[in-house]
Amino acid sequence: MKERLSIFKIGGKVIDDPAELEHFLSSFSKFPDKKMLVHGGGKWVSDISGRLGLSVNMIGGRRITDKETLDVVTMALPGLANKKIVAILQKYGCNAIGLTGADANTIRAVKRPVKDGIDYGFVGDIQLVETRHISALFNSGFVPVFTAMTHDGNGQLFNTNADTVASALSIGLSSNYNVDLYYCFEKKGVLRCLENEDSVIRHIHHNNYKEIKGSGIIHSGMLPKIDNAFDAIHKGVDRVFICHFRDIDNFLAGNLDSGTLITK
Amino acid sequence: MKERLSIFKIGGKVIDDPAELEHFLSSFSKFPDKKMLVHGGGKWVSDISGRLGLSVNMIGGRRITDKETLDVVTMALPGLANKKIVAILQKYGCNAIGLTGADANTIRAVKRPVKDGIDYGFVGDIQLVETRHISALFNSGFVPVFTAMTHDGNGQLFNTNADTVASALSIGLSSNYNVDLYYCFEKKGVLRCLENEDSVIRHIHHNNYKEIKGSGIIHSGMLPKIDNAFDAIHKGVDRVFICHFRDIDNFLAGNLDSGTLITK
Repeated sequence: MKERLSIFKIGGKVIDDPAELEHFLSSFSKFPDKKMLVHGGGKWVSDISGRLGLSVNMIGGRRITDKETLDVVTMALPGLANKKIVAILQKYGCNAIGLTGADANTIRAVKRPVKDGIDYGFVGDIQLVETRHISALFNSGFVPVFTAMTHDGNGQLFNTNADTVASALSIGLSSNYNVDLYYCFEKKGVLRCLENEDSVIRHIHHNNYKEIKGSGIIHSGMLPKIDNAFDAIHKGVDRVFICHFRDIDNFLAGNLDSGTLITK
Repeated sequence: MKERLSIFKIGGKVIDDPAELEHFLSSFSKFPDKKMLVHGGGKWVSDISGRLGLSVNMIGGRRITDKETLDVVTMALPGLANKKIVAILQKYGCNAIGLTGADANTIRAVKRPVKDGIDYGFVGDIQLVETRHISALFNSGFVPVFTAMTHDGNGQLFNTNADTVASALSIGLSSNYNVDLYYCFEKKGVLRCLENEDSVIRHIHHNNYKEIKGSGIIHSGMLPKIDNAFDAIHKGVDRVFICHFRDIDNFLAGNLDSGTLITK
């Protein structure tokens, strides 16, 4: 019988709001069994870029990461965001340890190849998750807090999408643990109607996904998240929840009837 | 019989020079037995402060750390400097893991009290090193790379002098290991005459220190480093070397006749 591991991914909206972040982290610190946090910090990257007079260059929602932007990502993510989160978790008695994929050689990636003439720069596509190094941290009682950077094992750091980092970690660790992956964001789940916050689709599984996708009711920004979730499910992850970050309190209270549950 | 642990502290000059840093880290990665690296990154803090239009405020060589400066320290040290170092060490097969004192709750501090009307801001005076958490990392095969930040256990990060972090870690870990502490900087050791790079005092111990100190031959900037070294020696550290960062190659070759050796 494998142990339960809960992996939470949080994004911009909760990180940018000090009161929401504090509340989320105090709840996370109470979550039972093994757990892990994965975070981005996108707004801070843009803020620091702006203050340094660097231009922000996005294509299809993905940041073009030149050398200067990579430095800003390295300041914002493992620097500002990660250390703030780790220090707050310690306050709540959660023995957090902050990591990029370079730390303890946990996540190896390769530079994303140039495609259709687009060079994303120092953006990494994940190749390998070193689960034994992460398990060693769990076994020492630490709670890993990953930020969205990886490395190539040859001295080069990469910017890597945080949803993808969370999904890769979940898949990698599913060989040792029963993994639940929680994608926490600012909506209550996958919505039937973007204007109606309460139109949450409770359960998406293999049988109804094609139908839901075909009906065009899911807005396009959500599709990559759901595809990511199904990829995780098909590669060994037990359950994926797409939910509001405040739903952590429901999950903590044992009420799993929040957000959108994705299973096989 | 306790195992040997070598703790290297590096400062501005080696971190600021990419070729020197690469060479130092490749040598460090070959160092035998247990090892640990402690680094600052002072020039980067000033550089980023300057680019963000923040004023740098130093009193007696110590940075006054207001809230904005603390953010810059958090971008520069655990962000830029630490991740660059960790990624390079991974390239040389050294399984580095980057840490502040908040990570794995390794170093607790309190805010430096206001004294003689000077408030240093978010500067921490170290109170406790959690050696069991650091030993757990060693036992998992990781090489800790500490940067000069600590926390109060209540969510607050602190800027803390890197020499002091190295000394506190050395003292704390001397209960479990035979610790050698290497303060690496841009001089060949403690010099009799600042203008003569070859006037290294080979050995300072309790008996000749008072005499050397009294003679006024050691320049004032070096005295806190030596006092720090004697403090470490008297609290359980085996040997302290004050040496050039390039001396690591001599030590690696088994030649201990480099820099200034400080013993009881």
